[in-house]
Amino acid sequence: MERRLFVRGAGLAGVLAAGSAPAIVHAQTTIRWRIASSFPKSLDTLFGVCDDFAKAIGEMSGGKFTITTHAAGELMPAFGVLDGVGNGTVEMANTAPYYFFGKDPTYALDCAIPFGLNYRQMNAWMSDGDGLKLLREFYAKVNIVNFPMGNTGAQMGGWYRKEIKSVADLKGLKFRAGGFAGKVLERIGVVPQNIPGGEIYQALEKGTIDAAEWVGPYDDQKLGFNKVAPFYYYPGWWEGGPQLSLYVNQKAYEGLPSEYKAMIANASAMAGSLMMAKYDYRNPAALKQLVAGGAKIVRFPKDVMEAAFKSAQDIYGELSASNPAWKKIYASYADYRREGNLWFRFSESAFDDFMQSQKL
Amino acid sequence: MERRLFVRGAGLAGVLAAGSAPAIVHAQTTIRWRIASSFPKSLDTLFGVCDDFAKAIGEMSGGKFTITTHAAGELMPAFGVLDGVGNGTVEMANTAPYYFFGKDPTYALDCAIPFGLNYRQMNAWMSDGDGLKLLREFYAKVNIVNFPMGNTGAQMGGWYRKEIKSVADLKGLKFRAGGFAGKVLERIGVVPQNIPGGEIYQALEKGTIDAAEWVGPYDDQKLGFNKVAPFYYYPGWWEGGPQLSLYVNQKAYEGLPSEYKAMIANASAMAGSLMMAKYDYRNPAALKQLVAGGAKIVRFPKDVMEAAFKSAQDIYGELSASNPAWKKIYASYADYRREGNLWFRFSESAFDDFMQSQKL
Repeated sequence: MERRLFVRGAGLAGVLAAGSAPAIVHAQTTIRWRIASSFPKSLDTLFGVCDDFAKAIGEMSGGKFTITTHAAGELMPAFGVLDGVGNGTVEMANTAPYYFFGKDPTYALDCAIPFGLNYRQMNAWMSDGDGLKLLREFYAKVNIVNFPMGNTGAQMGGWYRKEIKSVADLKGLKFRAGGFAGKVLERIGVVPQNIPGGEIYQALEKGTIDAAEWVGPYDDQKLGFNKVAPFYYYPGWWEGGPQLSLYVNQKAYEGLPSEYKAMIANASAMAGSLMMAKYDYRNPAALKQLVAGGAKIVRFPKDVMEAAFKSAQDIYGELSASNPAWKKIYASYADYRREGNLWFRFSESAFDDFMQSQKL
Repeated sequence: MERRLFVRGAGLAGVLAAGSAPAIVHAQTTIRWRIASSFPKSLDTLFGVCDDFAKAIGEMSGGKFTITTHAAGELMPAFGVLDGVGNGTVEMANTAPYYFFGKDPTYALDCAIPFGLNYRQMNAWMSDGDGLKLLREFYAKVNIVNFPMGNTGAQMGGWYRKEIKSVADLKGLKFRAGGFAGKVLERIGVVPQNIPGGEIYQALEKGTIDAAEWVGPYDDQKLGFNKVAPFYYYPGWWEGGPQLSLYVNQKAYEGLPSEYKAMIANASAMAGSLMMAKYDYRNPAALKQLVAGGAKIVRFPKDVMEAAFKSAQDIYGELSASNPAWKKIYASYADYRREGNLWFRFSESAFDDFMQSQKL
């Protein structure tokens, strides 16, 4: 680990500044770190958050704390970042923690579970509730300090070659889905498929799979699914507000000057908020273009939502009985999910509902 | 102005650090600033954001950039902060810009207008759209650099002594309302009242006024309105996502080292996001307690919403004809409002709608 934490003496810093634009005398702890992403550079939101974060750290430290950003596969495979940060191969990573639900489903609570928290609820639970505290305890076991850094908002439910008119149409459906969703989809008849992003289009075109989900209009548009699977369903009930995480190797983090630790907390909050803003600003235009290109926007039938909701609750109950970490963190998560939804149905939803029904 | 921007030479900084916990050699530009708030200390969200911001700046700068926080009235009156920052009496302020709509209604576009953007849409327009750029141009005329720093989310529609069954019940209603709302309320029969927060309770109890709006459950609970005006209406259509602003005196800002400028941008984003999280986490419990204390939660009748919406659009049209700054910025704001609402009605609203209808 230490091989990557360079500490250089930068000589005597003696320039004193005065007047209207004083030059700051740079802190002398020069550090170069790397951040390994689980995403390709083409995703300027999910990967772009790394660049926004690194730029902010560079500016705040006067160029002394430098972080280079690396796309999936450059330093390690996309899904290798949990181990990579944990064992100190790299100091930082940017990822969607539900990728690691096979190691422990508890990771998904740091990202998204079917019928989970929406974006604002996730932030509230993390920052003002117990979320961050509980997840920090969980990650300490794998030598990682986690920071929330971004969210996609509620995703779309994916692209389908044929219409889904009821839950019966899901039987045997070969559906490419990420994260924890497969576990729930399986119980309602779907045959979940695990296919990397770059191969989905061809599989859909050939009919090797029947449907695929990715993110939402802005990201999906880049992959061109509308040409081969025109039915674009919503909502993406398995990802109502997926949070992305910044992982920092614990030993490397503890070795940082306190100023740099604070910069990480502030820059990750800024970059994360910017990611949500990018999606919210860019999705509308992308959606219009997709519709012009043949996409048919369809709402999931009620019986599909209800069957999936029931299966999800069953699975959460089973996990709470078998996995103590899940049980502890999910209890806090589910408590706030109930409270949050009680409150959001009043002013927030009534305001949105009225605005969405007006001619603006 | 310069009298408050202290630049001290801190002697030679020569301690070189190495090993696992290197001490940072502090930047030598020592600065002490003040932030004047438009809010009392009792509002630990609206005022608390100043403390969260100042703490972050202190940590990131190793204690060299110190900001002290001051409640409304301590350095200047609550509504004196626009002039106070503009003329350099104080370096920074935290305020709700719609307080200044009397000087120019354009200020309200940096905060909230009736039937405006919700929280996420406001962030999207500010950060990824043209919002911040356009508002920076506008504020430059009064020597202020603005940074978004917080939001309350959609507010409640206030406390009423009697039920409002239709728009006819608004005729002659003496209603205490903040910001730009009075202009719209007047056109639908209301007699808007301007009363400071501390005097509302007594005025409601005595019947000097018939109704009053403040913020939402968490803040309203502190003032005890449920005891004297039990009908608690929603949504607060005049404040669907009010943004708070951090004002910085332009000359003082330009004199800062670039590292400190970057710290202001990052800390204000962090503290602003934390404010929203506090409201979203704390409002549910406050709402329950208010209901237990006699509050009756009622949705505004449709005809009230529609009459108010129409009046608001009329006013916006009139302003666009008479005020070039409003015209330019509102055009951008309204464009994204239309696009944002188009998109949010799909996945985001359908997900929330389903979750809010489940037994969780």
